[in-house]
Amino acid sequence: MINFTASYTDHYELTMAYSYFEKNRHNERAVFDYSFRRLPFDGGYAIFAGLDNLLDILENLKFDSKDLSFLSQVGFSKRFIDFLKDFKFTGNIYSCLEGEVVFSTSPILQVEGNIIETQIIETILLNILNFQTLIATKASRMRQVAGNRQLIDFGLRRAQGVGGYHATRAAYVGGFNSTSNVRAGRDFGIPVSGTMAHSFIQSYDDELSAFRDYALTHPDNCILLVDTYNTLKNGIPNAIKVGKEMETKGHKLKGIRLDSGDLAYLAKESRKMLDDAGLNYVKIAASNQLDEIIIKSLLEQDAPIDVFGVGTSLVTGHPDAALDGVYKLSSFKGEPRIKISENIVKTTLPGKKQVYRFSNSNGQWIGVDAVALKDEADIKVIYHPFDPHKKTTVKGCTKTALLHKVMEDGKRTTKGLSLNEISLYSNERLKLLPAEYKRFENPHVYRVGISEELRKQRDALIVSHRNQ
Amino acid sequence: MINFTASYTDHYELTMAYSYFEKNRHNERAVFDYSFRRLPFDGGYAIFAGLDNLLDILENLKFDSKDLSFLSQVGFSKRFIDFLKDFKFTGNIYSCLEGEVVFSTSPILQVEGNIIETQIIETILLNILNFQTLIATKASRMRQVAGNRQLIDFGLRRAQGVGGYHATRAAYVGGFNSTSNVRAGRDFGIPVSGTMAHSFIQSYDDELSAFRDYALTHPDNCILLVDTYNTLKNGIPNAIKVGKEMETKGHKLKGIRLDSGDLAYLAKESRKMLDDAGLNYVKIAASNQLDEIIIKSLLEQDAPIDVFGVGTSLVTGHPDAALDGVYKLSSFKGEPRIKISENIVKTTLPGKKQVYRFSNSNGQWIGVDAVALKDEADIKVIYHPFDPHKKTTVKGCTKTALLHKVMEDGKRTTKGLSLNEISLYSNERLKLLPAEYKRFENPHVYRVGISEELRKQRDALIVSHRNQ
Repeated sequence: MINFTASYTDHYELTMAYSYFEKNRHNERAVFDYSFRRLPFDGGYAIFAGLDNLLDILENLKFDSKDLSFLSQVGFSKRFIDFLKDFKFTGNIYSCLEGEVVFSTSPILQVEGNIIETQIIETILLNILNFQTLIATKASRMRQVAGNRQLIDFGLRRAQGVGGYHATRAAYVGGFNSTSNVRAGRDFGIPVSGTMAHSFIQSYDDELSAFRDYALTHPDNCILLVDTYNTLKNGIPNAIKVGKEMETKGHKLKGIRLDSGDLAYLAKESRKMLDDAGLNYVKIAASNQLDEIIIKSLLEQDAPIDVFGVGTSLVTGHPDAALDGVYKLSSFKGEPRIKISENIVKTTLPGKKQVYRFSNSNGQWIGVDAVALKDEADIKVIYHPFDPHKKTTVKGCTKTALLHKVMEDGKRTTKGLSLNEISLYSNERLKLLPAEYKRFENPHVYRVGISEELRKQRDALIVSHRNQ
Repeated sequence: MINFTASYTDHYELTMAYSYFEKNRHNERAVFDYSFRRLPFDGGYAIFAGLDNLLDILENLKFDSKDLSFLSQVGFSKRFIDFLKDFKFTGNIYSCLEGEVVFSTSPILQVEGNIIETQIIETILLNILNFQTLIATKASRMRQVAGNRQLIDFGLRRAQGVGGYHATRAAYVGGFNSTSNVRAGRDFGIPVSGTMAHSFIQSYDDELSAFRDYALTHPDNCILLVDTYNTLKNGIPNAIKVGKEMETKGHKLKGIRLDSGDLAYLAKESRKMLDDAGLNYVKIAASNQLDEIIIKSLLEQDAPIDVFGVGTSLVTGHPDAALDGVYKLSSFKGEPRIKISENIVKTTLPGKKQVYRFSNSNGQWIGVDAVALKDEADIKVIYHPFDPHKKTTVKGCTKTALLHKVMEDGKRTTKGLSLNEISLYSNERLKLLPAEYKRFENPHVYRVGISEELRKQRDALIVSHRNQ
């Protein structure tokens, strides 16, 4: 749908690239880490999403003729423009698999390449991964509370413009079943679904005629919206009438949808009325400003809702609206590099790294990841990243490396998984995370520590910069 | 950048379209209103944006072969697919001009056409207008407090995916000066700007060498990022050294950028150090989690900041993240239609309408808009839309119609304005809005009332539905 070119970047990536080019430093090797500092929604985990899109984009990224002519207009030299003509991404990427359960502090992905290519892709990488990870996480929270009930994405109309396209994809990674977004359904193979709007009912003189026509034209997939005039006085009685008429023709009313009012009360009353009429097979769908907190509350009240349609809060990742992912230089010309901050949490972890996750003998995660230097053979002690007095040992645990080489010399190392496979993988991984990390209120804090070698390297660099 | 096709819609638009088509009602004329219910950010106004994009999209909207093949896969009949092959939008649109200052309740735009085309464009219309109006409003609030200082959009990396593209456009409508987003700059003619990242500094063994190389390669546009190691101990002293060196070569350091720490304190100290070194012409730019509240606070503390770089909160419209715009049927087959809600605020205004804004003899707006029937000649009394006891007269005021025909039979009636013209228009209009509607805390409530004829029509329809 979207024609991504290399101008999908911040202007400073190009001014820096120009300096590197002019000073003949553009073939120097650099390593950048992608990580985030704070888990979204005050939750206990995040779901990593967007990787497959990103790799597709990077494999084909170049400056097109419009890009080059624009960059020339805004003052870049002809020599530099000629250089950009041949630009493509030729680096390596080590990454968590898409759908992985991830946490703050540790690198989720590392990019290795020349300084210009690693810099130019910064913006597009952050733009894609930050947003999809945010939305997949939001969707996953809804899935946690919805159990096996259907979750449908209704968000496109309130999405942040074209952001809605990838929001739908990320929602599916996080556990949604289907979407109203036809274009995303078409391009990503996500099941599409939808019922009717109030306007359909309003276009008739009365609700019953509207229901009848809809049932006639959608005999196998008829869900009736019952709140245009009055849910319990008109909507449900009319739906029951039509449901009984459908039975006489050998069809079955699939469901009714509630879109306003007290959903718990209306769902209970509607269920009773439908059951009393012998329509116990008719499903109840609910929509209207839902989020994971409201879904949880509805189910705690035993609201007999089978299908939740979720819009705004899902596709905008409300209330966070953004994941604070960053992309930081960790190595240049083979040497580890650091960015120091007054705030130790913002001081970066230098060098090429690997991330390990520890499991007990049952295969359950023990709540500890370790960030280590890439070539570090054995990890005995894991240190708190910011508090030198806190450390832990992980004896008897199995460790698994999380970063895999997914791109080499600008080409994917393996064919991408289908969206369905990614979603299933994510669900499997999340099962390994103990329940206390998944709850909404004060979730248990998953510990991400650093290895002894990484700690030494970081602290030595801090001291060396302080002494400069 | 984006290949919009008619599948950029919600699935239910198509299931409804199918019913209309099968029941041979698809040539019936319908009118839909676009409006929103709540002003964003608890503010006193909104800036309408996105219209020009929308009209461009509608002029060229069709189902492409991938769309048609997908719709056939998901079960639509061959006869219906054949019908969709020839789909294009052939309706009329009456709208506020882009950049207009708008309020809740009243229609900002009306669409008139056959029921299928008016229904299919619902999602794309809401998607584009809701988001750009949200962001232009956010940008306008920042412009209100920033005075003549520069505002630069830095948001792409934290934007909601590709939503960032139109966010940059909307920010410019709302009063931003430039953007880091190169692609949006290229496509919309927005000035691009950018400085350097921490990684550039980190790639050198020391900060001073990095600054020198950047100054050498950008002698006329050099803004140095001073907080990689320590702003006041290293960053500013090194920037001063480089600034003095530039002077000897006949160049001038353009600015320094602060990106962390206490921006008010650091800006004051930096200003003093720069001035003491004779570099009083060097500008101070600040970034890091800014929004209109923080910009206001910084300026109230007399922080000598000349340029604000704003990212996340601008492009995501934080904390709202969405505008609650809706698209409601107001007429079908020439007859006014209503959607009734338990909540009177959600009951729609039936019929084809015009919106009037009232000004006093100085041309200043008096804080009253009136929604009237389209053919209503004279408006004497304006009623509160929900409280029948509240009314006002507008004697001696000049009234201006806000809805203009911008599209006829699917074609724009006039060539679109440039983005610059739209931004200037918006700024001119906002000057006519008295200050008390622009403040952030408890802004004065702009009154949107309805005419006597519209009130009668609505109330008669409510009674008739209640009696059914």
